[in-house]
Amino acid sequence: MTLEAIRYRAGSLQILNQLLLPHQTSYDEIRSVQDAYEAIKSMKVRGAPAIAIVGCLSLAVELRAGAGGDDPVAFIRESLCHLTSARPTAVNMGRAARELMEFAENESMEKNSEQLRESVIAWIEDMLERDVNDNRKIGNYGAQHILSGVPRASVTILTHCNTGSLATAGYGTALGVVRSLHALSRLKRMYCTETRPYNQGSRLTAYEAVAEGIPATLITDSMAALTMREMDITAVVVGADRVVANGDTANKVGTYQLAIAAKHHGIPFYVAAPSTSCDLSLESGRDIIIEVRPPEELTSINGIPIAAPGIEVWNPAFDVTPHQLITGGIITELGVFLPSELQAALTGRLTAL
Amino acid sequence: MTLEAIRYRAGSLQILNQLLLPHQTSYDEIRSVQDAYEAIKSMKVRGAPAIAIVGCLSLAVELRAGAGGDDPVAFIRESLCHLTSARPTAVNMGRAARELMEFAENESMEKNSEQLRESVIAWIEDMLERDVNDNRKIGNYGAQHILSGVPRASVTILTHCNTGSLATAGYGTALGVVRSLHALSRLKRMYCTETRPYNQGSRLTAYEAVAEGIPATLITDSMAALTMREMDITAVVVGADRVVANGDTANKVGTYQLAIAAKHHGIPFYVAAPSTSCDLSLESGRDIIIEVRPPEELTSINGIPIAAPGIEVWNPAFDVTPHQLITGGIITELGVFLPSELQAALTGRLTAL
Repeated sequence: MTLEAIRYRAGSLQILNQLLLPHQTSYDEIRSVQDAYEAIKSMKVRGAPAIAIVGCLSLAVELRAGAGGDDPVAFIRESLCHLTSARPTAVNMGRAARELMEFAENESMEKNSEQLRESVIAWIEDMLERDVNDNRKIGNYGAQHILSGVPRASVTILTHCNTGSLATAGYGTALGVVRSLHALSRLKRMYCTETRPYNQGSRLTAYEAVAEGIPATLITDSMAALTMREMDITAVVVGADRVVANGDTANKVGTYQLAIAAKHHGIPFYVAAPSTSCDLSLESGRDIIIEVRPPEELTSINGIPIAAPGIEVWNPAFDVTPHQLITGGIITELGVFLPSELQAALTGRLTAL
Repeated sequence: MTLEAIRYRAGSLQILNQLLLPHQTSYDEIRSVQDAYEAIKSMKVRGAPAIAIVGCLSLAVELRAGAGGDDPVAFIRESLCHLTSARPTAVNMGRAARELMEFAENESMEKNSEQLRESVIAWIEDMLERDVNDNRKIGNYGAQHILSGVPRASVTILTHCNTGSLATAGYGTALGVVRSLHALSRLKRMYCTETRPYNQGSRLTAYEAVAEGIPATLITDSMAALTMREMDITAVVVGADRVVANGDTANKVGTYQLAIAAKHHGIPFYVAAPSTSCDLSLESGRDIIIEVRPPEELTSINGIPIAAPGIEVWNPAFDVTPHQLITGGIITELGVFLPSELQAALTGRLTAL
């Protein structure tokens, strides 16, 4: 079975409360845009694609109940603004809001309120389906690419953070590649880093692996290089917060260090991301601002202090991996590309193999 | 002030209980060899040099109170066997036990029980003093070597795990180098990794830094490469569990990954260790067996579960950094040597500059 982080059927939305993971599997009902705003803000749901999808689905739920009355466009605009403000750094919500708003405005030219609501709901439901389909394509392209270079019957993958069903509409990006390899019975084992300081690896990726019977081993972030040397790692596959035009990739802090270690061991390093996570407006990773988060994420766990009081802390949430270190390629729903091919591929000037 | 982890005056021994750090600073009285055995076993005291010193000092305390009666050699032998068994992987205790036993047996040829007790006590007290002096030499040699390559007024050091007053008789090895730089007013800042899974960095190194006013910033292990790129790190300095003949170095897991990242950034990588941590009987790091510790160190903190139940775990306690990556040198109390010079230096065939 695939872990369901988002349960949606027409008019009804539930999300797996990730704050309670891994100790409790509990779904929260999302009845309104405000419910979704609060779930996103409090990180009951996280992962840039998942945030966008839950936000838009909450709007669909309200629209189906007739929200917006005679002026659904105003209601949609207000709702999308509110949703985007919940976690402003999550790129996908902002992008979805812009696209959906443009669609709604165009539709409103020729449709009445009821028809507009219907078509916006259809657009959102399509978005949910598209994300899962894109992830499956990413999984399959990635799995094939990794297997194509390997004479062995099965492969061992190292991954970082959580990029699975819990971060997307379902299936996942980097973890989608792992899922595809597992489905093909070609996955020997996945190693996942615990991913300090927020422990997405030990809490979420490990949870997904256990839930689905994917053979997996948890390590600390500091053990990755040793694991590469000792455990016959076939490839390192990670997700992305943002991939820019030259292929430089912002992702969860620690990714850069993994890429350096992979290079040192001659292990291919892949980034798996939907084209919606690619931002061709920025030329290089130097233009990406590194978000620094509160010290408490390092100095306490579940509110319990674990570090010496008074120590200063630096807590950057992500880092930028230069494209030179992305030696395997960038896995998208359009195919696997070298960083140097990405721009042409996304602008339709290059087609995947 | 220098943090006092071991308080000793003739006949009296107290140790800082490291299990209560960083939240509580509390000293435990060690009245007997059995007290020391329990403190070592339960990890109230840790760090290979500190274990050896506390073990031997507990013997001195008992000898001063007249233990061993008419046959102190038998009592000493039995005590040392017991102490060595508390944590058999700690090399220094075993080495100290062998040397002290040999000394005691020689002394017993020509001395009566009372004289023997006196000379063994003197040997042990000398050991305490020697360790601190050796650490100060390591600190000074290391500081001078790092500064000699740097035109800047002050330097920034990245370190790993805890190698300070809490791991030695006082002052420390890698952290001793940091202390010396700070004493010379040439330390701009130290970055210390939290050092998962046992958090010696966030609990102990951070504690020492705060206690002594050393400017220090805590990072996760996964942020080290980013810190090297962004924070103008002058050198990486770590301790050692064991340095073998070719310079390969076993140290706390994560050290290997740091060395790879340092190499990638062209930052000198130093190992600081007393000659007693060098083991010329092994030719290369391949001969060192990697100790694997219980999964619970990763999956819980202070008894509270933090990982998905059912996930498999790999928890190697240390890794081996190949000598090629030790680009700065090996800092000992005899001077700073390239890995290729170590064997000759320790066997007296090479003198330090």
